[in-house]
Amino acid sequence: MENKNTNYRISSAVIKRLPRYFRYLRELLEAGRMRISSSELSKMMNVTASQIRQDLNCFGGFGQQGYGYNVKFLYTKISEILGVDKGYRAIIIGAGHLGLALVGSPMFAKRGVTISALFDNSKELVGKEYGDLHIYDISELDGYIKENSIDIAVLTLPRAYAKDTAERLAALGIKGIWNFTNVELDFEELGTVVQNVHIGDSLMQLTYRINSSGEEE
Amino acid sequence: MENKNTNYRISSAVIKRLPRYFRYLRELLEAGRMRISSSELSKMMNVTASQIRQDLNCFGGFGQQGYGYNVKFLYTKISEILGVDKGYRAIIIGAGHLGLALVGSPMFAKRGVTISALFDNSKELVGKEYGDLHIYDISELDGYIKENSIDIAVLTLPRAYAKDTAERLAALGIKGIWNFTNVELDFEELGTVVQNVHIGDSLMQLTYRINSSGEEE
Repeated sequence: MENKNTNYRISSAVIKRLPRYFRYLRELLEAGRMRISSSELSKMMNVTASQIRQDLNCFGGFGQQGYGYNVKFLYTKISEILGVDKGYRAIIIGAGHLGLALVGSPMFAKRGVTISALFDNSKELVGKEYGDLHIYDISELDGYIKENSIDIAVLTLPRAYAKDTAERLAALGIKGIWNFTNVELDFEELGTVVQNVHIGDSLMQLTYRINSSGEEE
Repeated sequence: MENKNTNYRISSAVIKRLPRYFRYLRELLEAGRMRISSSELSKMMNVTASQIRQDLNCFGGFGQQGYGYNVKFLYTKISEILGVDKGYRAIIIGAGHLGLALVGSPMFAKRGVTISALFDNSKELVGKEYGDLHIYDISELDGYIKENSIDIAVLTLPRAYAKDTAERLAALGIKGIWNFTNVELDFEELGTVVQNVHIGDSLMQLTYRINSSGEEE
């Protein structure tokens, strides 16, 4: 697996950990920290120091003896790898509670993604404004995506509409689908990047840990 | 890591995959399937057949040559390990869009968890009903938890209240906290099971994959 932008080879296991590094480094930056040792980062993140050194070495984040890691350098590097600097534009399809919860979250802005509109098929919602965002009718989807160079569609609509909508989005050339519908959408079939979110898996980890007397993940 | 109920040793890597097995087996059951081969399950789940055999052998789910796995047996076994059969009772603290999105989802019922009430501190919300559920004032939390044998608290409140609320819940003897606030709550500090949800990590995996031209996780 190769990252085209940096030519560093990054394993998929490291990639799954990068969003966590991103979060912790961001917190350190916001707290004004300039540098951090692998042992301190290890303690914060509950990962071994050797794992951290190994992960960060993958993309040139070499720590220096007696200095540690440069927080801003690492944060910038990881941001680039994760595409935070690309300024992706997104729309949310489904203006129910979940869609509106996502709109209200600072998560997108922190990760360089701009939400530009909401879509729904409900007559009660279409045409209204939510915060700064307009709620469009789902029939306006095709034109809107083309005119506004949308990269990402967030699916927060009922699961019955998931597959058809995803196929329509793929045909429109959308780059990525963030799928909250709990329908397993397939990258191969669609021909576009899909990230399926299964919040219930996290609930199952919680109940597993309660059931097995609280041991840590 | 040992599961107290079965005496099988299950590694934490397997445990992270169990919720996915649970989902797929449930779909097979709902579709009336009685048995499945490791190769078919492998294709569905995009995991190697040998990985599946290795995972399922951990808790006695031995497949039989020419027969495959008994879907109902596996589903029941995994449900037990994950605590689905325990009938855990939960409350949701924070009746904003995210809290209401969770209440409206079939996720809890499918996983054996019953939501029994919502809590909020907003005068506009407290005292109202949402579906079958009453929205209580946060000041009623302590009494409610004790009287109703609540096991799990779902935190969907603003992050500023996260730590204090979690400490209060731990002191009340709650068994597990499902934390959506994006504040990293610590198991060791609280002395109760915490599952922190970071939806933004999933967004970062999406943008990473778009940025690196669509390769699969």
